Order: sequence, then structure tokens, then C-alpha cells
Amino acid sequence: MEQLKQQIREHGVVLSEQVLKVDAFLNHQIDPVLMQRIGAEFARRFRDQGIDKVVTIEVSGIAPALMTALALGVPLVFARKQQSLTLTGPLLSAQVYSFTKQVQSTIAVAASHLKAGERVLIVDDFLAHGQAARGLADIVEQAGARVVGIGIVIEKSFQPGRGELERLGYRVESLARVASLEGGEVRFID
Amino acid sequence: MEQLKQQIREHGVVLSEQVLKVDAFLNHQIDPVLMQRIGAEFARRFRDQGIDKVVTIEVSGIAPALMTALALGVPLVFARKQQSLTLTGPLLSAQVYSFTKQVQSTIAVAASHLKAGERVLIVDDFLAHGQAARGLADIVEQAGARVVGIGIVIEKSFQPGRGELERLGYRVESLARVASLEGGEVRFID
Repeated sequence: MEQLKQQIREHGVVLSEQVLKVDAFLNHQIDPVLMQRIGAEFARRFRDQGIDKVVTIEVSGIAPALMTALALGVPLVFARKQQSLTLTGPLLSAQVYSFTKQVQSTIAVAASHLKAGERVLIVDDFLAHGQAARGLADIVEQAGARVVGIGIVIEKSFQPGRGELERLGYRVESLARVASLEGGEVRFID
Repeated sequence: MEQLKQQIREHGVVLSEQVLKVDAFLNHQIDPVLMQRIGAEFARRFRDQGIDKVVTIEVSGIAPALMTALALGVPLVFARKQQSLTLTGPLLSAQVYSFTKQVQSTIAVAASHLKAGERVLIVDDFLAHGQAARGLADIVEQAGARVVGIGIVIEKSFQPGRGELERLGYRVESLARVASLEGGEVRFID
């Protein structure tokens, strides 16, 4: 998606060979028009999949997932990392390991919001090691629902996430694939 | 906003005389079409205010604030409660006390995302004691920007938030004003 790559080139900041900061337009300040186009692009790529629900994880997945859900005309559910006062009743949960923070955490969705047989599109802002997406897929499958695709805004293709997800049989669509952040420069695949 | 009240009547769950659970459409599962209408309604109410930016706080403020920012054609910035790997550089911060969780926490926005002279609309999902909105307004004013209004999806009018914010001179617009949750029933003002 050329407009996204352009924003990354102009406003992305390479903090290290692993970390790309995109807080000017994606995950702190948000460009709503770009986000709408991201949603439209995911909807275009997955429209033939008969999607019933979009699932993401707080915090930074919410904006692109909301726009995707709007474009597809289906509800969005976001998994919580934090215990919430109103997250009551039976939960579906999974363990997710964060390589950057080096902590294991539990993510959860109220069981009432995922139903057996639903066709689910997972959307997230970044794909690195694939831990968040795998945790979300695990939760979807615990509900007896089916993951029909995983939509990623920015894939760090030099990390093993895509490979892991594809090995598990998931279709992964990423809007920007970063080949490398070496030398402080963003290089894309394609 | 009648459609919102209807959703609250149909899908809201009164957990106590203080706590209304709306996780079926607002803050866990999200109805994107309702959220788009919420954004359009805030935009309609504040369109004459020359707004430059919408500011909210993670997590549940993001969806209504994003739709408001899209409708107004301006960027969105969300304050972070959690330290983030990419939240680097000078920060503007404020202390926010949560009455429900009984903890004090620090919320922060990168100083680069708020500029002196900007006209800011604050949007949040709930108004109870007004602590989050006051913390956000504090951050906006630290930047030399101006809060031109506060848009709230659901106001718990039996709690002191609106009074506090109005006493400080802020215009508050709430789309649903809950007079009481007594007896397990949601009663609205109007």
C-alpha cells in the first residue's frame, strides 16, 4: 500500500535495527484518513471471505481494526491485556510472550462475543514474532470460530512472525513489509 | 442521541448502582456503524469551533475519538497510560486518580503531538468523576493549546464529573446522560 509506505518513509523513525517508531500517524497520533484507507484495503483483500467479525488486541490494533470492521460492515472485538472492571463472565484467554518487553501476559475476550462457526479476520498494527496474532487465533479457535485471515499494517519481515503464522496455515496480508531497518533506514520488500 | 440510548437500553448491563457495562457495543465488542454515528454527532456539535485536533485516552476512548477525528478531518492523539517502547522524547503528563480502581496513574502524550495555539476537542467514552478529562485538559494546556470542548459518549450524571468540568469553564456535550442506575435500571436525563 503505497500511501502507507510513503508515511513510513516520511514520518517513521528507526529507533534500532528492530524498532520502528510510527507514533506520528499510527499508534499515538493517528491519521484518520490513512486509517480509513487501511480499513478499505483490508476489506478489499478479504471481502470474498464471508467475514462475520474482526478481532484485534488493545491498544494500537483498535484503530485499523475499527476501520476494517466498518468497511466490512461487521462488529469488532478487541482482546484485553488488562483486567477490566466490566470484563465479567466466562472468558477465553491465551498467553502471549512479548519479546520486546520480555514478559508473558494473558489476553482475554469475553466468551459471549465470539460464537462457534463465525468467520474471523484478525487485524493488528505490527507483526514481528507473531505472538499476539497467535494468541488471538488461539482464542478465536477456542470459541469454535475460524480464522480466515490475518491483516497486518506493518510487517517486520526480518522477524519470524509471518513464517510462523503461515506454517500454522493462516493467510497473512501485510500492507507494508519492512525488509530491514539496518543503518537507520527503512527498506521495504517489493 | 436516541440510537445510543436504545443500544444502552437493549444491551447495557447494570453491574451496580455505579457501574454500567456496555461491552457489547462500546468498549470490548464495538459496533462500528454506531461509532461512526457517534463521531458524526460530535462533529456536528463542535463543527463551528475550528478544531485542529481530537485528544482522547487509551483504551476505550480511541474508537469514538477516531470516528470524530475522521468526521472533522483532523488528527487524533491518544494519551497513554502505559509506558511504551516508542514513547520517547519530551512528554507532557498528568496524574489521574481512578475512583473505581482506587489508584493514581500517570497519563502522557509526546510533546511533539500537541502545539501551542491548537484548538482541541477532548473525547472519551465515559464521564464519572471527570478525572481522565481533567488530566487530558491539563496536558493540552501544558502544551499551550486550548480545550474548546469535551465530548462524552455516556455521562453518569449522578456523579460529579460534569459539574467539576463546567466549574473549570469547559463545555461538555454528552450523547447519553444517565440519571441513575438504581434498581438495576438505566434512567436517562431528558
